[in-house]
Parts: sequence; C-alpha cells; structure tokens
Amino acid sequence: MKKFSPPRRILMGPGPSDVDPLVLKAMAAPLIGHLDPAFLNLMDDIQKLLRKLFETNNQLTIPISATGSAGMESAFVNLIEPGDSVTVCINGVFGERMSDIVVRSGGDLSRVEASWGKGFDMNAIRDNLLLNHPKILAVVHAETSTGVLTHLSQIKEVLNEFPETLLLVDCVTSLGGHSVGIDQFRVDFGYGGTQKCMSCPPGLAPITVSDRAIKRIHSRKRKVQSWYLDLTLVENYWGDSRTYHHTAPISMNYALYESLRIIHEEGLKQRWNRHHKNHLAFVAGIEAMGLEMLVRSRDRLWSLNTVKIPNGISDGIVRTKLLERFAIEIGGGLGPLKDKIWRVGLMGASSQKKNVLLLLNALEEILVEEGLLLDKGAGINAAERIYV
Amino acid sequence: MKKFSPPRRILMGPGPSDVDPLVLKAMAAPLIGHLDPAFLNLMDDIQKLLRKLFETNNQLTIPISATGSAGMESAFVNLIEPGDSVTVCINGVFGERMSDIVVRSGGDLSRVEASWGKGFDMNAIRDNLLLNHPKILAVVHAETSTGVLTHLSQIKEVLNEFPETLLLVDCVTSLGGHSVGIDQFRVDFGYGGTQKCMSCPPGLAPITVSDRAIKRIHSRKRKVQSWYLDLTLVENYWGDSRTYHHTAPISMNYALYESLRIIHEEGLKQRWNRHHKNHLAFVAGIEAMGLEMLVRSRDRLWSLNTVKIPNGISDGIVRTKLLERFAIEIGGGLGPLKDKIWRVGLMGASSQKKNVLLLLNALEEILVEEGLLLDKGAGINAAERIYV
Repeated sequence: MKKFSPPRRILMGPGPSDVDPLVLKAMAAPLIGHLDPAFLNLMDDIQKLLRKLFETNNQLTIPISATGSAGMESAFVNLIEPGDSVTVCINGVFGERMSDIVVRSGGDLSRVEASWGKGFDMNAIRDNLLLNHPKILAVVHAETSTGVLTHLSQIKEVLNEFPETLLLVDCVTSLGGHSVGIDQFRVDFGYGGTQKCMSCPPGLAPITVSDRAIKRIHSRKRKVQSWYLDLTLVENYWGDSRTYHHTAPISMNYALYESLRIIHEEGLKQRWNRHHKNHLAFVAGIEAMGLEMLVRSRDRLWSLNTVKIPNGISDGIVRTKLLERFAIEIGGGLGPLKDKIWRVGLMGASSQKKNVLLLLNALEEILVEEGLLLDKGAGINAAERIYV
Repeated sequence: MKKFSPPRRILMGPGPSDVDPLVLKAMAAPLIGHLDPAFLNLMDDIQKLLRKLFETNNQLTIPISATGSAGMESAFVNLIEPGDSVTVCINGVFGERMSDIVVRSGGDLSRVEASWGKGFDMNAIRDNLLLNHPKILAVVHAETSTGVLTHLSQIKEVLNEFPETLLLVDCVTSLGGHSVGIDQFRVDFGYGGTQKCMSCPPGLAPITVSDRAIKRIHSRKRKVQSWYLDLTLVENYWGDSRTYHHTAPISMNYALYESLRIIHEEGLKQRWNRHHKNHLAFVAGIEAMGLEMLVRSRDRLWSLNTVKIPNGISDGIVRTKLLERFAIEIGGGLGPLKDKIWRVGLMGASSQKKNVLLLLNALEEILVEEGLLLDKGAGINAAERIYV
C-alpha cells in the first residue's frame, strides 16, 4: 500500500476552493477530547466568529457536523412538521434538492419556478404566498448550479406582507464571499458550507437560527425525524449545559476556527470587495474573448461564474486540458446545463487576480488550439484593465 | 484573534483516541476536487481497505460523511419503512440511542434489555424474535457507555432460526480493535467511527451493507426520510457512475486512507492482539490496586475498560488531576453510571504499554493522595508482569 499524495491543483470549480496553508496546518494539530475544557472554549470562539460572518446576533449559530447538504437537511427537518405548507423557489439543482427534502420531511410542497440561469419574479412569489400562506419560504441565495444570486432585499420586501412565514436561506456559495445579512433581511434559518468562500476543507455546515425559529422548533408536537440533526439536542452540546450528543469532528473545528480568524483578519467588507473585483475582471476577460456569461449582469454571483460553452467546443476536451496541462479545476454544467456551461469558482482563497489571469490565459490558449480564437491576449488585457 | 493551539493530551477516554502523526500529516495535504480523477481513485482504495477491515466482501462498504452516530442513523433510516417491526438489544447509551432512532424512523420498536454493565441473555433475544419476527435485530457490538462486548457468534446462532431477520451491528468502538467478522457472523449492516480503534480524527462513519440489505433498500415503497443519508443516492457517487451527491469531506478521506494503510501495515490480527494484551495488563494493574472492573471477564471490551470508582473517591477530582497534572484524558460514566465508573479507552494508537503504565502510575499517585491507597507500585508491577 503506498501513501497517497494528492496532485497540486488550482481549485476554480464549484467547491472545494483552495485552502490557506494556515488552515491546513490547523488540521494537523494533535487531537483533544470533545469535552476537553480547551475544546469547549474553542467552540465558544467559533460561535462568536460565525455570528459575525452571518451578520447576526442569533444565539444558535453553530457548525453542523457534516457537509453543506446536511445543513440544508437540518433546516427542513427541524422546522417542518408533517403537513406543514412550504414554498420553495427553484431555479437550479439546489432549489430542487430543497424541494426533495421538503417532501421527505412530510411537508406540503409548493414550487415557485424560474428558468435555470434566471432570477425570480417577485410577483410570482407574492402570488404563491397569498395562495398558500406557507409556514416556510425557502430560497437559495447563491445557486451554485447556475451562478444566479437571489436578492434577499427583494425577498424581505415581499415577506413584509407575510409576517408569519419563516424565511429559510441557502448561503452555501455566498457565505464569506457576498454579504448574507441574516439579521438585516430577517432570515430565520441560514446555512452555509465550509468549502466555498470560507476556504476551509469540506466537512462542516455552519447554521444560524433566529429566536422565533427556535421557538417553532421547541413547540413541535413530534420529535425531529433525524436524531443526528435534532437541534433540540445539538444546542445543548453547543450551549451552556455541554451535554454530550455526538463526538464533534475535532480537527475540522480547528480548521473552521482558523479560517474564521483569517476571514475576520481580512475584514468582511474587504473580502466581499475582493470577490466582486475578481468577478468583474473575469467577466471582462470572458466577454473580451467573445464568450458569453449565462446570467444577466445584475443577477450574477461573484463567487460562481457561469460561462456559456461556445458552439463547436467540447466541454470534456477543454476541462481535461485545463486540469492536465494547467492543473486548474473548473466545473461543468449540471442537469439541463450539462455540456452547455462552465462553472468557474472564484471563492475564498481561490478568488485572486493571479488565478483569474491564469485561467483566462489557459482558456485562450486552448480556444486558439480548438480553432475558436485566432490569437491570445484580448481576455487577459481586458481583465488587467479592471485591476488598474 | 489569536491562533488556537491545542494542549497536548494523552487520549484514553471513550474517543477520540490519539492519532498517528502520519494521519495528521495527511489531513494537511492540499485539497483536490471531489470529482478529481485522483480523488476517485482514492475512493476506490478506501473501499478496498475498508472491506478488509470489516472482514467482508460487501460491495457497498464506504464512509458516510459525518460522525459515527450518523452511521447509526444511516442504518435505520435506510432499512426501516414505517410500521416495520424492529428489535433492539439495549444495555447502555448506544442501545438507547438506537431505539430512539428506530422510533423517529417510524419503526415498531421492541426492546430486549439487560442491566448496564451486563451482557444479554440469548434466550430473551430468542423469545423476542419468536414473538415479533422483526425485520431487523439491532445490537451494539461494543457498548462504549459500559465496556460490554456482545458476542456476535451467539447472536448469529440465535438468528440461524430467523433467516428473514436482518442483523444490524454497531461496531463503533470495536472496529479496528476487535474482530467484527461482518461476513462470518452474517451481519447485514455494520457501521463504525473513525475516532476510536482506527485512530483517525472523528468525522466519518465507515459502513458496510450486505447484498440482501441493499435489495431491501432498493425495494422500498417510500423514499428514505433522509436525503443526506439515502444510500440509493450515496452509492451512485461511490459506485461506477460517480454521480455527484454531496461534496465529500476531502481531507477526512485523506486521513481515513492513511489510517487504513497503517492498520493493514500492522496487520489485523496483530492489532487485535495488541488491544487484547494492553487490556489484560490494564485490568491486572487495576485489580492489583484493589479496584474492581464493572464487567465480568468474558464480556469485557479490550478497547473500552470500565473501572468502578471506589467508595469515597470523587470522580471529578480524579479526572481533573489526571488531565491537569498528567495530561491524560479518561471518561466518566453516563446516565445511571455517572459518578460510578471511569471509562478508559485503549484504542488504536492510544493502546500502548507506555500509556497503560502512565495511567496506572498516575492513578496510584492520585489514590494515595486521596487516602485510598497506602503506597504506589502494586498496579504497575502487576501490569508489567503481563508484558513479560
């Protein structure tokens, strides 16, 4: 049996993103017990830093001990009781996943749909709420499968008319790259993933839960269907009583703390600005090469950029060349967008001028080889101008 | 914000156990994508090594992307449909946890109980099966809360009379320290945790599923209630089609591979023998000090040793001294055994002669201070004789 030595990659796909060497170093620290006083202190610090990141004062702000999708599941299984009416806004894979989980949780699902790559019509959402008066409205802030941003300010405006409806928001691909404004937009349950704009390895799902959502959970008639994700149990381990629930992933929490430390050292606003600028430079480069973005300008994510694959160009050939020759990973399309788009992540430590230029250069070189472009340079030059 | 630097501990509690520096180093390797060809190869290697560890040919042998308790939940939510009759053998916390999850999964629960610290009466199990003919019989191989081993050879003998009943076994605290014999004992669903006798950080739950259990899952009428743990989806990511389900915890899988490599380099039989010997030495030392083990000799786990706290001795004082003065973590009792026992883990990299002697020496010193012993030496000397 030989040792595994991973190849070096530049991670510019839909996640994981590149991880800061300091975070990797934290992963390698010796273990301590999950009830060790030093670990309990670390848990307190993690909660404080997560609240700042989510822009919230919510007491219950903790990492779930599994990946981002388990954060999604934790939201629905805790909030839904069988028969509860739930409206899900769907314009990509993660909205679809939400709707799947709503049904598995016994919710009465109602769908508001938009085409993949497009934002939602707020009137359609309002009409749905008027008809169903759901207990929960669920939206994906940053749809990783399409690169579309849902504007939470608009959602909040609609929800002002429906004060009883809880707002549940998937922040997996925005948390740490865009402002998520949990308190500002009155989000009742938000969740993220560590491996996107937080640039920590995958394995934890930070969540934040409003007091009124906690009240809803505490007044459930039936137990939460998942023992592992039952927040009435999990909150006791993360809260004052420190009651044992499950063994926390110690090393992942070391890494989470270190990544949060790095995030707040940079500063949230500076970090969002960095994500914005690198996004603008990348788009300028792509458009200067004659390629098109999937999403219209004002609905674009900064962290996940979707580029239409030009006619006659093979997704597989380009991505294989990028990986094998340039060590760059980008993502392909999912579902109806398979073979139609590339998904370029500019997240956390991967959101860097250097990476934007590397990728544009590599893409131009490959597209010249594939006969789409006559020569190189236009893309990089356009991107460089954004950085001036 | 200052950097977190964990104190150095010798982990001799109920888990996590000490982690080999090579495994810690693997955790710090740079990230690659969860669909990277190099990662897909690593997944294949992990599955092969896990099969050897579980002593099985089961195709579906993979790590669940969460801790051991999620392994438990994955077993029940996949196998149970609402109304299914399930018998759970309960003689500690983890049997109780199983029964809780059975109810949350809609199962019709039937309990076979034994006192905490005692093994099961096989006739009681047989009587229950005759009465209920359950679809599933669930047992905890290694009850971490009490230190009791359930003898799977005896369970298999009873189940020979009930060929339709699936056998579900919790191997969290035995896997890697005791033989689990998944194929030999016809276990249909076994699960473990990485942080016990495998000496990998907590964060993954290896599972193994027999072909007949998979058939049962594939013929379900209702979807599995958990999307995250739905094996009909998870198996497609770990199987040939490599269909994206969730983002695998990359670094934890690096660590898992490295820990499996180390386990098989040592050899399973050698590893079990090592756990056995260190257990015998520890017990000899404890008894030579005049202390008593909770569990009778033939039902004792090698990996988790439970010692009765002598009358007049405070659990809290002893464990605090061990931690603060000797940097040794051991565990306290849970539920009815709180303040009544110490739980001493001799798991994986923590199961070492050096640690046994360190702990016996520290305990003797503290018990002399507390006025229970007149002088030191008897415990260590008795343990030393086992190693001769």
